[in-house]
Amino acid sequence: MIKVGVVGGTGYTGVELLRLLAAHPGVALQAVTSRGEAGRHVADLFPNLRGHLDLVFTPPDASDLHACDLVFFATPNGTAMQLVPGLLAAGVKVIDLAADFRLRDPDEWEHWYGMPHACPELLAEAVYGLPEVNREAIRAARLVANPGCYPTAVQLGFLPLLEQGLVDPGNLIADTKSGVSGAGRKAAVGTLLAEASENMKAYGVAGHRHQPEIRQGLRAATRQPVELTFVPHLTPMIRGIHATLYARLTATGEDLQSLFEQRYADEPFVDVMPLGAHPETRSVRGANHCRLAVHRPRDGHTVVVLSVIDNLVKGAAGQAVQNMNLMFGLDETAGLAAAALLP
Amino acid sequence: MIKVGVVGGTGYTGVELLRLLAAHPGVALQAVTSRGEAGRHVADLFPNLRGHLDLVFTPPDASDLHACDLVFFATPNGTAMQLVPGLLAAGVKVIDLAADFRLRDPDEWEHWYGMPHACPELLAEAVYGLPEVNREAIRAARLVANPGCYPTAVQLGFLPLLEQGLVDPGNLIADTKSGVSGAGRKAAVGTLLAEASENMKAYGVAGHRHQPEIRQGLRAATRQPVELTFVPHLTPMIRGIHATLYARLTATGEDLQSLFEQRYADEPFVDVMPLGAHPETRSVRGANHCRLAVHRPRDGHTVVVLSVIDNLVKGAAGQAVQNMNLMFGLDETAGLAAAALLP
Amino acid sequence: MIKVGVVGGTGYTGVELLRLLAAHPGVALQAVTSRGEAGRHVADLFPNLRGHLDLVFTPPDASDLHACDLVFFATPNGTAMQLVPGLLAAGVKVIDLAADFRLRDPDEWEHWYGMPHACPELLAEAVYGLPEVNREAIRAARLVANPGCYPTAVQLGFLPLLEQGLVDPGNLIADTKSGVSGAGRKAAVGTLLAEASENMKAYGVAGHRHQPEIRQGLRAATRQPVELTFVPHLTPMIRGIHATLYARLTATGEDLQSLFEQRYADEPFVDVMPLGAHPETRSVRGANHCRLAVHRPRDGHTVVVLSVIDNLVKGAAGQAVQNMNLMFGLDETAGLAAAALLP
Amino acid sequence: MIKVGVVGGTGYTGVELLRLLAAHPGVALQAVTSRGEAGRHVADLFPNLRGHLDLVFTPPDASDLHACDLVFFATPNGTAMQLVPGLLAAGVKVIDLAADFRLRDPDEWEHWYGMPHACPELLAEAVYGLPEVNREAIRAARLVANPGCYPTAVQLGFLPLLEQGLVDPGNLIADTKSGVSGAGRKAAVGTLLAEASENMKAYGVAGHRHQPEIRQGLRAATRQPVELTFVPHLTPMIRGIHATLYARLTATGEDLQSLFEQRYADEPFVDVMPLGAHPETRSVRGANHCRLAVHRPRDGHTVVVLSVIDNLVKGAAGQAVQNMNLMFGLDETAGLAAAALLP
Repeated sequence: MIKVGVVGGTGYTGVELLRLLAAHPGVALQAVTSRGEAGRHVADLFPNLRGHLDLVFTPPDASDLHACDLVFFATPNGTAMQLVPGLLAAGVKVIDLAADFRLRDPDEWEHWYGMPHACPELLAEAVYGLPEVNREAIRAARLVANPGCYPTAVQLGFLPLLEQGLVDPGNLIADTKSGVSGAGRKAAVGTLLAEASENMKAYGVAGHRHQPEIRQGLRAATRQPVELTFVPHLTPMIRGIHATLYARLTATGEDLQSLFEQRYADEPFVDVMPLGAHPETRSVRGANHCRLAVHRPRDGHTVVVLSVIDNLVKGAAGQAVQNMNLMFGLDETAGLAAAALLP
Repeated sequence: MIKVGVVGGTGYTGVELLRLLAAHPGVALQAVTSRGEAGRHVADLFPNLRGHLDLVFTPPDASDLHACDLVFFATPNGTAMQLVPGLLAAGVKVIDLAADFRLRDPDEWEHWYGMPHACPELLAEAVYGLPEVNREAIRAARLVANPGCYPTAVQLGFLPLLEQGLVDPGNLIADTKSGVSGAGRKAAVGTLLAEASENMKAYGVAGHRHQPEIRQGLRAATRQPVELTFVPHLTPMIRGIHATLYARLTATGEDLQSLFEQRYADEPFVDVMPLGAHPETRSVRGANHCRLAVHRPRDGHTVVVLSVIDNLVKGAAGQAVQNMNLMFGLDETAGLAAAALLP
Repeated sequence: MIKVGVVGGTGYTGVELLRLLAAHPGVALQAVTSRGEAGRHVADLFPNLRGHLDLVFTPPDASDLHACDLVFFATPNGTAMQLVPGLLAAGVKVIDLAADFRLRDPDEWEHWYGMPHACPELLAEAVYGLPEVNREAIRAARLVANPGCYPTAVQLGFLPLLEQGLVDPGNLIADTKSGVSGAGRKAAVGTLLAEASENMKAYGVAGHRHQPEIRQGLRAATRQPVELTFVPHLTPMIRGIHATLYARLTATGEDLQSLFEQRYADEPFVDVMPLGAHPETRSVRGANHCRLAVHRPRDGHTVVVLSVIDNLVKGAAGQAVQNMNLMFGLDETAGLAAAALLP
Repeated sequence: MIKVGVVGGTGYTGVELLRLLAAHPGVALQAVTSRGEAGRHVADLFPNLRGHLDLVFTPPDASDLHACDLVFFATPNGTAMQLVPGLLAAGVKVIDLAADFRLRDPDEWEHWYGMPHACPELLAEAVYGLPEVNREAIRAARLVANPGCYPTAVQLGFLPLLEQGLVDPGNLIADTKSGVSGAGRKAAVGTLLAEASENMKAYGVAGHRHQPEIRQGLRAATRQPVELTFVPHLTPMIRGIHATLYARLTATGEDLQSLFEQRYADEPFVDVMPLGAHPETRSVRGANHCRLAVHRPRDGHTVVVLSVIDNLVKGAAGQAVQNMNLMFGLDETAGLAAAALLP
């Protein structure tokens, strides 16, 4: 049994991680920390866990993190980087669900996250935890940077096209729609039901932190400069990301459907839907799958890829568990076999 | 492995049953029948099952139902009663998720369901599948009538009070709120998102088929005449039932909280919440639990019980699996251990 | 033109009041105050008002309130009572949409609102602004206490029965369901879309501030002691209240439908629906109507009244405008003629 | 007073048209026809109209349409073209809210709508009712083809760029999101709340009827071949369209914000929001406005235009009333002055 700790278990990625870990056959959950909720039963805060998890929040500085084999950080950006060096030194592996180790360039990180990086020397070691790209490196990693939700959906959709050089990397568009749980479990007017329900809006068009993360991943795949227009939208639902991706084909005659099917043939969590399909976010609600469909409307120059994930599962906690399974030599799908909840 | 067939797997109770059975460790799913969808892959209709269930809908008259140990009916009312006698004669056990075997009086059944009963001789044998009341009878049953969704939530909330004779059975009120999946997966104007979202309404105040079912169960518990006012409401959500129950106390001084805790102390799927709690339907979304809280506002004469279930799980498919576990000597919680999906 | 000021125009009752006043033919809006948003264009905060309202928020202590004929308070509880004496002394009439002047007993007010009342001497003068009960007093009033949202829906439903002495006032139940805009436009975790959508829960069962307000109104109608069990529920929608009311008939043979129709025959904003109807909250979305239906299931002892309003209109801003029309001798329906938005 | 008839008043564009016409100061509503609902009170079907509209549905062949000055068609595609020639011959003007007269090429119409056009000779005369493009022609028209919902939002967003030749017309992308009322008020599984809520999906990527309508309008503006990739999405809300438009700039240095502000400076229903804004669909809920914002992320080659409308108002019934106002010499904004309902 892997001894696991969770730092910052009071947000939506936290509760989803706890739901998955509580049911995981290979995990012994040792500690769930929260400064604000220390002393409170986890299941008091999250009543879906009543009867499934009998733990009390402890303060984050508790030494029991050092007794773990693995610590997950489900904290705000900038927290993990304070504690990770100490944990690694103590022989504890780390998966950070926040953004602290996602960008390889510390200057870029500081630009987007508004603070200097606390341990830039670890950025080169940190493995970007997208198993469909970095599986072997993840197996060997001490420190995994779990990808963002939008970056997961967008990269999985663009990668086959860029890896094969079939589209112009200088003109990529990602129009993405996210449920409001992506904004986190914090008191805010903008994501009140009375504000965000029966409403649709774009946000962050001028610049969003996930844009450089996606660009970094796509650049690695294509080895050319990438120009990506990234427009996220707040959608009146709780869970789910729908990424609609547009690229200009530079070659014609390719069988795009076969390309995608082959690229992901051995991937347990990427489902290439049949030709002409329109994947629905609800088809992955609560599940760790990404479902993709490829279209080329009217046989034109533009290829359209539809990519859906559950932002809290494949976009956060599920992918983190997938990474844990890889790091500890378990079956990659352990604890992640549940089908989506539909309707 | 129990060989299982599902008749009528194209509705919401059907897909939920398939989701649970596909993950159940003791079940081998043999056949899923549908007249309308015969020949189509189940996972085409329900994409959440892609990768989890590799079966094709077959016509309902296929003889492979007779090769099963157990057949579930997830059909409209009036269908199961046509096929059940033949199945029982062939040694196949049956759980009917529809209403065909819920009422013991065939005249009452005909009154509420608008057709004569096809096999009234089986009504006495059929066991009403509420394990918290009839566990031993279910273990021994060939034919189980799976309770309705409202009846499950309402009976579990009222039973401790009526069994102990603490309230007036002549003045019971059940104000119930259901998500729209309770209306089923059929084309209808009234449950379109554009009609039912951002809206709340009562329906069936003059009479609802679940009223006699509830009354029958409560009468059995109290052995006195029962007068129940039952008002269901259509609520703008997909899943979930919230029953708010009102009764007049005939005794005072009772510790109602202890009463409920003791009544359900050994029940794996009934959770009596702490004093003063307000259970939320989302705390049981996708899970087989019923969560209850008891209140006596301002120490008055009226006791208020709050009872929540997922109408598709404890109110339908989950309870059916629980009954199957009992009928076949499995652990009662097998295949039902998942925590609710929150948020 | 009535010169009108609005204190505290940044919440949901505020923006709804501004929407109605901006279109009102007899109103000149002079000032909208907000401490936090002073200096900002109102239409920046509420983009639905772009092109309809060209005003800037001013600080609440601005003397221009004294130049108004009427000031509305759309502030948190406890604010209006600080400023009302000065306004009345300056000859300005006041309608308070908060609770400061709703309860006649200052001790009860202090008990429920947690602070001593700042001007208890005005409680006797304040007129409770339910036109269907107090129309003539409202016409003559300097100070109107605009009713709460639940109290409006519940009183309009119970009043005909209590006024005629047809039900037992010692056993009234109001099971009420409200959209989340009733909780106001303030940052809070509990009313985030990710928490409150796809969810139903009761709250405040032990005690809710609207209970004494309703009881006060019902007691005045029946002149007997009233015992009211009041259970509010948070419903996953933005606007709307559905009150389901239960009472025990003390007489039989009454034509309840006629009773309701006669009671409200001359009321412009109370619509008694036909026998057997189920009013929907969306049928009053954005409109000032209360729609009612009366049921007596199975000719039993319990009468069920269904009452729906838009909590922000008849339950707040619309009723306030209706009161203004009465106080200033305008047509009672001026500015309130719009039909509900459906779908 | 304009004598007005409505053919097919039982859908969502129908009820919205009736809501607007019932409150319009210059309209006398003479007849509302429906084959299926003939004899039923309109307000029985649409309870929001109780007290606002006292009409009974009549059969569509009733001769009283010929006594009207203007007839609106809110019918399925293919109905209006059967009746329009007769109405025009009788001197009755027509506004068709369906697609019968939107495409100028009868072959293209037949291709997309699956039937031959019944009166192709009228296609040249019909005026496409987008006032921001065709105002003078609309004033003089006998027959107006009211634009589709997506086409309205998309054209208003692209037109300023194309008219000025600032973008490549060979590479336009419209990623559009619509509430489900766009699918109409007809019984269908796909738009049930239980299917479409908590879900996001694209549809019609291979081809959608609004694509040729948009392309026709854009081609007229640019006088060059247009290649448009059009991807609509079903969004879990009732009303609203959010169009996110992408184009490649062919010139740099243009002040795009000024361009849009000047283009729409005199338009009563097009609101160019300030630089950096993110218009919300709820800011136009129930209102006839289109709100636009222009972005050029990171000063790159791609311009992003955000365009929101209420699909039932500016995208259907409101624009039809705007066209009526123009055709009959009324103030263009008559009956359309209401602010959006927010929240």
